[in-house]
Amino acid sequence: MTAVYVAGVGTTAFGTHPDRSGRDLLAAAADEAFADAGVGPDAVDGLYYGNFLGLDAERQGHQAPLMAESTGLTGRSALRFEQACASGGVAVREAVRTIRAGQADVLLVGGMERMNHLDTATLTEALGTAADARFEGRVGLTFPGAYALMARAYVERYGGSRTDLAHVAVKNHEHALDNDDAQLQQRISVADVLDAPTIADPLGLYDACPTTDGASALVLASSSAAADHGLDDAVTVAGVGHGTDRLPLQGRTSLVRTPATERAAAQAYADAAIDPADVDFAEVHDCFTIAEVLAIEGLGFADLGSGIDAARRGETTADGARPINLSGGLKAKGHPVGATGVSQVVEVTKLLRGTHPNSDAVDGRTTAVAHNAGGTVASAVVHVLEGQR
Amino acid sequence: MTAVYVAGVGTTAFGTHPDRSGRDLLAAAADEAFADAGVGPDAVDGLYYGNFLGLDAERQGHQAPLMAESTGLTGRSALRFEQACASGGVAVREAVRTIRAGQADVLLVGGMERMNHLDTATLTEALGTAADARFEGRVGLTFPGAYALMARAYVERYGGSRTDLAHVAVKNHEHALDNDDAQLQQRISVADVLDAPTIADPLGLYDACPTTDGASALVLASSSAAADHGLDDAVTVAGVGHGTDRLPLQGRTSLVRTPATERAAAQAYADAAIDPADVDFAEVHDCFTIAEVLAIEGLGFADLGSGIDAARRGETTADGARPINLSGGLKAKGHPVGATGVSQVVEVTKLLRGTHPNSDAVDGRTTAVAHNAGGTVASAVVHVLEGQR
Repeated sequence: MTAVYVAGVGTTAFGTHPDRSGRDLLAAAADEAFADAGVGPDAVDGLYYGNFLGLDAERQGHQAPLMAESTGLTGRSALRFEQACASGGVAVREAVRTIRAGQADVLLVGGMERMNHLDTATLTEALGTAADARFEGRVGLTFPGAYALMARAYVERYGGSRTDLAHVAVKNHEHALDNDDAQLQQRISVADVLDAPTIADPLGLYDACPTTDGASALVLASSSAAADHGLDDAVTVAGVGHGTDRLPLQGRTSLVRTPATERAAAQAYADAAIDPADVDFAEVHDCFTIAEVLAIEGLGFADLGSGIDAARRGETTADGARPINLSGGLKAKGHPVGATGVSQVVEVTKLLRGTHPNSDAVDGRTTAVAHNAGGTVASAVVHVLEGQR
Repeated sequence: MTAVYVAGVGTTAFGTHPDRSGRDLLAAAADEAFADAGVGPDAVDGLYYGNFLGLDAERQGHQAPLMAESTGLTGRSALRFEQACASGGVAVREAVRTIRAGQADVLLVGGMERMNHLDTATLTEALGTAADARFEGRVGLTFPGAYALMARAYVERYGGSRTDLAHVAVKNHEHALDNDDAQLQQRISVADVLDAPTIADPLGLYDACPTTDGASALVLASSSAAADHGLDDAVTVAGVGHGTDRLPLQGRTSLVRTPATERAAAQAYADAAIDPADVDFAEVHDCFTIAEVLAIEGLGFADLGSGIDAARRGETTADGARPINLSGGLKAKGHPVGATGVSQVVEVTKLLRGTHPNSDAVDGRTTAVAHNAGGTVASAVVHVLEGQR
């Protein structure tokens, strides 16, 4: 089985792009990834593309051939994956598996979402379609409320406080300060988080990620293709994992465990032949502060009930034992839904290469994880990436 | 590389199911496929699922984990594919490739669409999102009009008549008469087709497929899994192919060629080591009568410009040299969009097994094709299936 290398990475700035269409955003990210890889579309066998809400956001279905044309791949196989906020991560996983199978040598992976042109109520309802329409949507549950339920259940079960959660937000904003691709490059304090308007008790506005437009792209290559084209083989996708769970919260046996993450992590660690203890740093799916807590527990970086104060204790900060979300995370880099899982691999790759503004924090470290989740973690994708530094 | 067997098939009746949710429809199809295969969900590694308009039709995104739960696969990897009307075919292809790669032994493939509860104007607009929103949708082009443009261009280039096209509809209705899963089990005449209201000149109401609710499912298995579980290995997926094209018609060099089909067919034939002449019968994507004509030319069953009178000349009827759409096709069996590509494999499998009401028409024949297209054939998937009779 061939190794799979991240040969090129590209991303638009995350933020507000009212004047750019989805196809334009993805093309820009792809162009950057091609330039980074040093190969163009001619070398690429196909497109693996993640997008969640294109049918709402641009009234555009059938984006696979459209995005193939936008990125110079007209005629080639192109697949669109939709798995809510894990759409991008799923696209990465399937591309890795396809190259490993020898069914492609070089693939473009892309993700894109446009969100800011939708008004808040419309967008909140649309994002709510990642929950169960029959059992959650129709009683009015949207994601701020769903994650608030999980946060309340967590604190009731294990303890911890809003202040603990606030440290997650403060940390991720701090990490984004030097990341010019990030949407929110501003320092915030614990007091800022605690003083922000409540959106769904116990979560306030600063416990939530922003609304983001953007696109990210990767060029993935087999070892033979990397050799043939002289591609960068410094970063390898060493492990992949994918798990699901019941969609509605009411179907779960626990609101404070994320079995989809646990399943995906177990697969990815076994695939890469590592243990959680081997992971030096990670990008995890922090759509809300509580989500980062659940993620680091599900990934095995913290014992159950102990993840909530990891940021406050400094374990997950840039100078901590295992930095989490050095990009700024969804919280501060931003969360253009279908792009997020791809963007995480872009950020980890730059960190492993030593070309990220925060690379100093992980100098000499070689093993990282990217964790992308959908809905209330009814879907999760985990990738293990390894560098050569 | 392992062979991939169609070990089990299931489908709901195609038609109008106002009282059934998507999850219920898919579960029914999956239950039938499991019963047919003689294994249950415990033997299955994951779900590959096609659906186009769930975000509109049921305000339900993130259907992969939902459908995994509905089919007894909670927690396992589940993927949703969206490629407009080719969503189901793409799901089949990716499942076949995953098993061939040794990344799964047994997979459930499903497709589902609910459409009849939407009013016609809403549905027509929604289906129109399979075209280019920027260059086609916003000037009002919907699919009856798009296929009418293709039909007009075809007749202008090659000749042929509305009567020729009418014979396609008559044939496919005839084929559906004994197929109890079909939505339209009624005999029609050429005069009926010609007398029907025009929907987009030169296409009339009977040149178009109906609006359909339904779901279909397959259990696909590797050779080792088939041996381990004693599964039916009579029908093999011997070839897969997938191609795309520019999404908007205006981007094409021709309105009367379908390069996506040609690409997918070339791949599938090479994969199965056959020529078009080896194909005994086929299910093709006849969303409109002209679409069947373009499909049989793109698949290499008819020379360019000669496909239009194949039905009139009896070449594609049940007693013809190469029967096309013995199920009734999209035209008469129905077209629940995300299910269609899966349903075609269900029908071909029954025909190859000798258990289909129309199996007598292909007695002793062993090589068949399923062809599923998206939009105005901006996407196409071709499968070669081989039986042992």
